[in-house]
Amino acid sequence: MSDYIRDASEIYRNSFAIIRSEANLNVLPPDVAKVAVRLIHACGMTDIVTDLGYSSTAAQAGRAALAAGAAILCDCRMVAEGVTRKRLSANNQVICTLYEPEVPEMAKHLGTTRSAAALELWHSYLEGAVVAIGNAPTALFRLLEMLDEGAPKPALILGFPVGFVGAAESKAALAADSRNVPFITLHGRRGGSAIAAAAVNALATEEE
Amino acid sequence: MSDYIRDASEIYRNSFAIIRSEANLNVLPPDVAKVAVRLIHACGMTDIVTDLGYSSTAAQAGRAALAAGAAILCDCRMVAEGVTRKRLSANNQVICTLYEPEVPEMAKHLGTTRSAAALELWHSYLEGAVVAIGNAPTALFRLLEMLDEGAPKPALILGFPVGFVGAAESKAALAADSRNVPFITLHGRRGGSAIAAAAVNALATEEE
Repeated sequence: MSDYIRDASEIYRNSFAIIRSEANLNVLPPDVAKVAVRLIHACGMTDIVTDLGYSSTAAQAGRAALAAGAAILCDCRMVAEGVTRKRLSANNQVICTLYEPEVPEMAKHLGTTRSAAALELWHSYLEGAVVAIGNAPTALFRLLEMLDEGAPKPALILGFPVGFVGAAESKAALAADSRNVPFITLHGRRGGSAIAAAAVNALATEEE
Repeated sequence: MSDYIRDASEIYRNSFAIIRSEANLNVLPPDVAKVAVRLIHACGMTDIVTDLGYSSTAAQAGRAALAAGAAILCDCRMVAEGVTRKRLSANNQVICTLYEPEVPEMAKHLGTTRSAAALELWHSYLEGAVVAIGNAPTALFRLLEMLDEGAPKPALILGFPVGFVGAAESKAALAADSRNVPFITLHGRRGGSAIAAAAVNALATEEE
């Protein structure tokens, strides 16, 4: 018991060393591989590399947007909590509209989930933003619909909804046609708020 | 695109039906199986059943404690955010001390991580509490040390730290000797705040 590692920097260093030694990062472009290291770190699974989907400019677009102060739009508060503020050099806004008081009524009116309805409050922030979806497939589906309806384009979509109904489908829809928005996603059922937040954290600074 | 399921209740129902049809829940006692369904729902992986560890009274102890108003002690704010407040019938306190102002200095003084140092502020809440660790192995290691040092016993330990350094080891230490505290854990590297919060949510009410 008394011999566990207590030094945070050493824990990070060792973690990343294990990830780099075990994960098959060579199949990824270097800028995506760097993001993948943090995604793996967040979930403990090196085999997610196989399921990563991304557009060629995604990492670069995300880094540039965050450095320039892009807002970070999150589908749930767990993602917003997972974004490490001290990694955000431009004091970026981290926004989650899920608990805004009008959302439950909007969801009823629109016949959809609260997670999807909450995106109606994103319009004024969407242009050039980094979108991080870590929970709700319906939020990712709705985002794609909004883009089809002419909503302003974000700089990057980090699409990591999780689960058994719609998660794989919404991520497949994103990867099949991201409406010319750069994206990073994890195909299949896996995903989640920790992975979505880790993607933001990876792109916020080059520092590991 | 237009045919995705938008009804939250239907999404839940379908998700749980898929989980029950695919996961090998028969190897678990019924009360643990019910918790497992929500853990699987949170991470999208049915195969975590194999890695679950638990003591025989854990689910029962957790339900009783939460119903009686036990505090919920979380190692990070993502876990605290993931606890669904409306499932808590006794208006339980949800406590995370990680960002208390004295923690960084305490961590330096104690030569440990902030996540572990934050537990020093748990003493007055520990008795009969439900502890939910979803991030830091050092927090789980420190909790076991505190119990060895005579700290008050929580009602239940939900041990779900994630990652490559100490996660598997801290969970193995918990399962090998939980200091007579009921526990639920997920062996290996997998874990995380969504799973830890899902365990609390599963035990907070019988309602799915």
